[in-house]
Amino acid sequence: MKVLILGLDGYIGWSLALHQLALGNEVCGVDNFSRRKCVDEVGSWSAIPILPMEKRLEHLKKEYGNKISFFEGDIIDQQFTNDVVKKFQPDGIVHLAEQPSAPYSMIDQEHTIYTQSNNVIGTLNVVYAIKNHAKKAHLVKLGTMGEYGTPDLDIAEGFIEVEFRGKKATIPYPRFAGSWYHWSKVHDSNNVMFACKLWGLRSTDVMQGVVYGTRTKEITEENLFTRFDFDEVFGTVINRYCAQAVIGHPLTVYGKGGQTRGFLALEDSIQCISILLDNPPQMGDYRVLNQFDEQYKVRELADRVKRIGDKKGLDVGVQSIENPRLEKEEHYYKADHDQLKKLGFKATRHIDDEISIMLDDLIEHKDRINEKKESIVKILKWQGKSDGSQ
Amino acid sequence: MKVLILGLDGYIGWSLALHQLALGNEVCGVDNFSRRKCVDEVGSWSAIPILPMEKRLEHLKKEYGNKISFFEGDIIDQQFTNDVVKKFQPDGIVHLAEQPSAPYSMIDQEHTIYTQSNNVIGTLNVVYAIKNHAKKAHLVKLGTMGEYGTPDLDIAEGFIEVEFRGKKATIPYPRFAGSWYHWSKVHDSNNVMFACKLWGLRSTDVMQGVVYGTRTKEITEENLFTRFDFDEVFGTVINRYCAQAVIGHPLTVYGKGGQTRGFLALEDSIQCISILLDNPPQMGDYRVLNQFDEQYKVRELADRVKRIGDKKGLDVGVQSIENPRLEKEEHYYKADHDQLKKLGFKATRHIDDEISIMLDDLIEHKDRINEKKESIVKILKWQGKSDGSQ
Repeated sequence: MKVLILGLDGYIGWSLALHQLALGNEVCGVDNFSRRKCVDEVGSWSAIPILPMEKRLEHLKKEYGNKISFFEGDIIDQQFTNDVVKKFQPDGIVHLAEQPSAPYSMIDQEHTIYTQSNNVIGTLNVVYAIKNHAKKAHLVKLGTMGEYGTPDLDIAEGFIEVEFRGKKATIPYPRFAGSWYHWSKVHDSNNVMFACKLWGLRSTDVMQGVVYGTRTKEITEENLFTRFDFDEVFGTVINRYCAQAVIGHPLTVYGKGGQTRGFLALEDSIQCISILLDNPPQMGDYRVLNQFDEQYKVRELADRVKRIGDKKGLDVGVQSIENPRLEKEEHYYKADHDQLKKLGFKATRHIDDEISIMLDDLIEHKDRINEKKESIVKILKWQGKSDGSQ
Repeated sequence: MKVLILGLDGYIGWSLALHQLALGNEVCGVDNFSRRKCVDEVGSWSAIPILPMEKRLEHLKKEYGNKISFFEGDIIDQQFTNDVVKKFQPDGIVHLAEQPSAPYSMIDQEHTIYTQSNNVIGTLNVVYAIKNHAKKAHLVKLGTMGEYGTPDLDIAEGFIEVEFRGKKATIPYPRFAGSWYHWSKVHDSNNVMFACKLWGLRSTDVMQGVVYGTRTKEITEENLFTRFDFDEVFGTVINRYCAQAVIGHPLTVYGKGGQTRGFLALEDSIQCISILLDNPPQMGDYRVLNQFDEQYKVRELADRVKRIGDKKGLDVGVQSIENPRLEKEEHYYKADHDQLKKLGFKATRHIDDEISIMLDDLIEHKDRINEKKESIVKILKWQGKSDGSQ
């Protein structure tokens, strides 16, 4: 199978490439290195150092030769995106090339516009490139559980049947996104759904939970590590807490910490995406599924990191800070996640083991985290009201 | 009241300005003249000639002096949009500055990207300008009934209550848009809804039906006419049929002509928008309403134009042509439109009278329609399947 990974240089993109290559697949990567630039812009870097792409590729080529290739470029560029798809002729395309941070999209007008135009136009270019040059390619588009928000309803996988004035219809599950970033992902979901209908393309839209961890089976040596963000803007919650724990910074729980989300270890995220690549939907199908393993409240996560960290002698503190986000701090949350299990997904990692490994890996890079310590506490308060109302 | 009209040079924008000035309000207009350029690009022009903006303004200034002002520019330009809102300090902003044609958005990749980036980024700049400089201003954003598509359900006004697994919630009415243009309007609706929630702005999102007609009360002489598009791409259905009738071109009914839509005379559209400006929602409210008078099937409209045209001696033919669009040709359609009536709207125009006036007005400009006759029949087949499936 030929797999095109848009966003090869990123946290999931790199880990996925290692796994796909290990499976014997042919991988082509694309990146414009915007993640490195944006993290630098907010005053941080990857806790675990990563090599420049050129060097990363050298290591892969030693093992996999011509099975790995790479194009530097921006998918905002129509010609570039068309050319890559035309040349590589992928069977599957994993679209991880979006601006992925909610806080980043909330900084100011420029960052909102950048996020929405980058994500919407980039995704349009991807569906056009598929239509133009590789119509059978299966687009695995990464969305986010955050598109749904936290409605006072069970969260289905993509679609629900509703009744209105005595008539029934199946409708896309309503979206209650809470940031300009999350709305950009909703726009993309709508555009991809339409592309499937209009041109008969096929796509799986993955509503992914929050991914955590430093390792996958293939990350066995220093040169193979994937990036690891711990700053306030690009670091996700468990990863951020682990980085805070190793430098003795109290874990920053937003408000009451009752926010519930779905979570997934990096290893299991890669497993899920790989299962999807192996099981494309029929031509014309737009399939939506929810990709996470377990639900946790944010303050439970802090307690777990503290418990495991304390055992390692880290003396971890937990601190409630004013919530910079526009979100409810206590809410109903019950989300389906059955489709991936039906396709064969079984979670392989336990969160406590994963936290333990992460802490060990991060202790090695304590100095790098300390050096960019300010990026942890430089809380960007979202511009709106953050009273938890929806 | 101070009213900022984004898209002053357009069909509705110009007519609305005349009415708002007649009411004694202060009007500031903005335009980048993209409509003139895009219609030229598809090989057509306004059937009724309109003056350059400079001359149009001269006529208005004679009557209204400083109560009318204008800024040429593109709302895609953040600085420009912020400056205009800051300087004029509007009470109401009517956003008519979107690329408004579904067929135009379906021409090719460039036109899709142009439509979505123009509409999404322009609207984001408008909500940011309000937040930055005129927080109390009421944004009247023109959406379209086309956002809803033609689901097999009654269409509510913006929101419905649904029950799922024993829990109830109010959700945005699901959108089943059928073109890249229509989806861009859905993205805008979502973004404006979020801006109201995030910053406490207020907006009315108008799901407008198809507008037709050449006249309003204020269009009393040659120099005051608004533009009138009759080409395949920018002309809407009744207007297009009337232009076809006066040059002896058979009315081009798409497929079976069973497509049902809501319609509204230009005069009544202006009345509705003016009622909304006079009745802003509370701060923080995002109000959605459906703006049309009557529902008709497309082939009924052709029959009406034929009947009225024949009486005038026009000998009108009706021709079914292959449907270039992605739409059902027979479908359920029942859309609420009560909110505007509650605010005082009463339709003042009957469709037959309006068609008669339009035919008379257009006969005067028969030569101009004939000169660009090819733009009527140059059917742009949409790139997808147009088998009527949804």
